[in-house]
Amino acid sequence: MTTTTETNARTTKATVTTTGDREVRIERVFNASRDRVWKAMTDPKLVAQWWGRGNKLDIEKLEVKRGGHWRFVEYSDHGVHGFEGRYAEVTPPERIVQTFEWDGMPGHVALDTCTLEDLGDGRTRLVTTSLFLTAQDRDAMLQSGMEGGVNESYAALDKLLAAMR
Amino acid sequence: MTTTTETNARTTKATVTTTGDREVRIERVFNASRDRVWKAMTDPKLVAQWWGRGNKLDIEKLEVKRGGHWRFVEYSDHGVHGFEGRYAEVTPPERIVQTFEWDGMPGHVALDTCTLEDLGDGRTRLVTTSLFLTAQDRDAMLQSGMEGGVNESYAALDKLLAAMR
Repeated sequence: MTTTTETNARTTKATVTTTGDREVRIERVFNASRDRVWKAMTDPKLVAQWWGRGNKLDIEKLEVKRGGHWRFVEYSDHGVHGFEGRYAEVTPPERIVQTFEWDGMPGHVALDTCTLEDLGDGRTRLVTTSLFLTAQDRDAMLQSGMEGGVNESYAALDKLLAAMR
Repeated sequence: MTTTTETNARTTKATVTTTGDREVRIERVFNASRDRVWKAMTDPKLVAQWWGRGNKLDIEKLEVKRGGHWRFVEYSDHGVHGFEGRYAEVTPPERIVQTFEWDGMPGHVALDTCTLEDLGDGRTRLVTTSLFLTAQDRDAMLQSGMEGGVNESYAALDKLLAAMR
């Protein structure tokens, strides 16, 4: 059973699609209740365990409320990378709207709308729509290896959610 | 002569135009050299004297470099208003690209590109193009009284620039 679970976790990929010329939509189903996914996305001690894909992650700020700021620093083999943004809307346990900015491209802000849908059988669908200022910003994000990074984060989140049972 | 100068300052309005459905362009000529306008836009002690349109303004951050943050708090008769953003590009004395966000609408970020053109006769043209994430954000900004606020700030900047001679 353990082997099967690990295989499933390894082969579960997020569905990444583009809409218009400035949007990316990412959809992924998690084997956990909506409340548990919400907690893993908003509790700094839990976020530190999955967002960095196994890399050390400093949660410098995580003010989960409208107008609050967030800032994470990831220490990977490829260097130190800061990410930050601000919450536009926080509606537990179903919706977060926040900006996203990578230190490496300051000012190239995206607005991420994350919704958690309770699928009713102990599973939860997470859909994140990212709206960029320009088509160039959207395409640069896609070409940065975003999809691989998201899948690595979500695989780490799978493990955390299982451990939270 | 003093009277004439004051009248000119009072009647000089910025030219505000819209382009596409997500942009606002603001153009204004100042009677000062480009270096002087640049200094007034980037020195915290000088910014505090004009940006708030005569209201008390706290310059909490003004890190004028790529990736740096800025944050101002204005104390007006209508309340306390925070504004902040981050520098995407700083090229003295001619170009600044930065994000702009008002605390009252967190996450509704605009990207402002400011260019200073040396007109060669002791005058400088400032053009600011603001790109919003959505047409709704752009229209909300226009309807917020932005044009009046900009003209009040620029009138205060006129006075400061004259005093810097």
